[in-house]
Amino acid sequence: MLITLIGAGNVATHLGQALKGHGHTIGQVYSRTYEAAQQLADILEAEAVANPGSINDGADVYLCALKDDVLESVLNGLTLLDPLVVHTSGSLPLSVLSTCSTRFGVLYPLQTFSKTKVVDLSKVPFFIEASDNRTFTLLTDLASQLSRIVQPLDSDDRAELHVAAVFACNFVNHLYGLADDIMQRRNLPFEHLLPLIDETASKVHELKPAEAQTGPAVRYDTSIISKHLDRLAIDPGQAAVYRCLTDSIFTRIKHT
Amino acid sequence: MLITLIGAGNVATHLGQALKGHGHTIGQVYSRTYEAAQQLADILEAEAVANPGSINDGADVYLCALKDDVLESVLNGLTLLDPLVVHTSGSLPLSVLSTCSTRFGVLYPLQTFSKTKVVDLSKVPFFIEASDNRTFTLLTDLASQLSRIVQPLDSDDRAELHVAAVFACNFVNHLYGLADDIMQRRNLPFEHLLPLIDETASKVHELKPAEAQTGPAVRYDTSIISKHLDRLAIDPGQAAVYRCLTDSIFTRIKHT
Repeated sequence: MLITLIGAGNVATHLGQALKGHGHTIGQVYSRTYEAAQQLADILEAEAVANPGSINDGADVYLCALKDDVLESVLNGLTLLDPLVVHTSGSLPLSVLSTCSTRFGVLYPLQTFSKTKVVDLSKVPFFIEASDNRTFTLLTDLASQLSRIVQPLDSDDRAELHVAAVFACNFVNHLYGLADDIMQRRNLPFEHLLPLIDETASKVHELKPAEAQTGPAVRYDTSIISKHLDRLAIDPGQAAVYRCLTDSIFTRIKHT
Repeated sequence: MLITLIGAGNVATHLGQALKGHGHTIGQVYSRTYEAAQQLADILEAEAVANPGSINDGADVYLCALKDDVLESVLNGLTLLDPLVVHTSGSLPLSVLSTCSTRFGVLYPLQTFSKTKVVDLSKVPFFIEASDNRTFTLLTDLASQLSRIVQPLDSDDRAELHVAAVFACNFVNHLYGLADDIMQRRNLPFEHLLPLIDETASKVHELKPAEAQTGPAVRYDTSIISKHLDRLAIDPGQAAVYRCLTDSIFTRIKHT
């Protein structure tokens, strides 16, 4: 297929490389920043464009991997004849695409992408939604080339899944960051925590998170908790997070 | 070596099995609950005891893996002749052992242990502290049989490391639990999140957590954040955690 990438960020970079790797042609790469478009276009042997009006007709799919609040204005700038437009957002409903075409869909990869980190897309769940059955089948076939896990999901459930993903990924990574800050205060290497981080992730493959919970809060060990809060007094922000999550663990135990 | 296990919880279970696996003999297993002592003693071909006064002289190491607030009373109940007493706590200083012996130490495995989940101890960092050089060498040699990563660490740094571990493990697992709750509201399987959870852990092997951060908060995408808070209004506790961690991400960006 001939695919036009609208966006040149982390998601566009990973999907573009994977699609090219599976034999598809990336014709054009659009980004508001020409340098970003050029950089990704070079990798994908495509043409870089920095103006939505310069995006050509004729691609089989126009794949939009943009920040949510940018998507609408870019879509308004398109001058294409009934394109198949697809977005990759967890939060935006399918219906945001209905103003610019009669054929549209969503292809949502549930993963965290950073430009420099290689990701094995074959294990990433892709969630599909489409305006019509033909488009649904086309997107399911396309996603199935990239991943073994491809499922239908409507806009409302996808938005809820995205909230869960913020807890399981973005907030988790931030806690790694706070742990890193604490280690740095003592010149302790963050690497010491990696086996613990890996095992914590590994455990929930076998146990439910509630069964896997360990530590002072789930034991209601108020003596350790108060010692920890004393140590965190040096950073009120860290202490606030400690208090908030400890309270949340207490509440969850009471309700289960 | 002849080792007596004082405690029959998750840490005692994993260390006891590993020590036996490396050719050591577990003589006795103590727990306040006789059933717990009996269960672990059966696995380790040891004798179960439920009274500290029934713990025999003659073991090379008395390894205490107890809840912090229980340790002191159990130590007071010991009637042993200058035993080598070792605890495994992240939070308790070495000095808590000074009342019951002249030779004592700490052997702290930085890992989360649940009884039913197998752990590869060879990758778990063990941190050692001791009353004297001979004990330090003995504990370092013992830990080196179990793990490739054995390091000295004093009580104060160990306590700080334990705080970091609460963030990187206990709080992280609780976020997995909240994500599970959100998924369950929509009958979405938790398994969908596992590739994301694994990749989030995997990324910080290559990138610093601050570099790996993705999601609406780090992009300051207040439109998505407010939609997420609307969805979480159904559970004020979840909303409070969302708000607290989003604020913490905002603060950390400002300071870096």
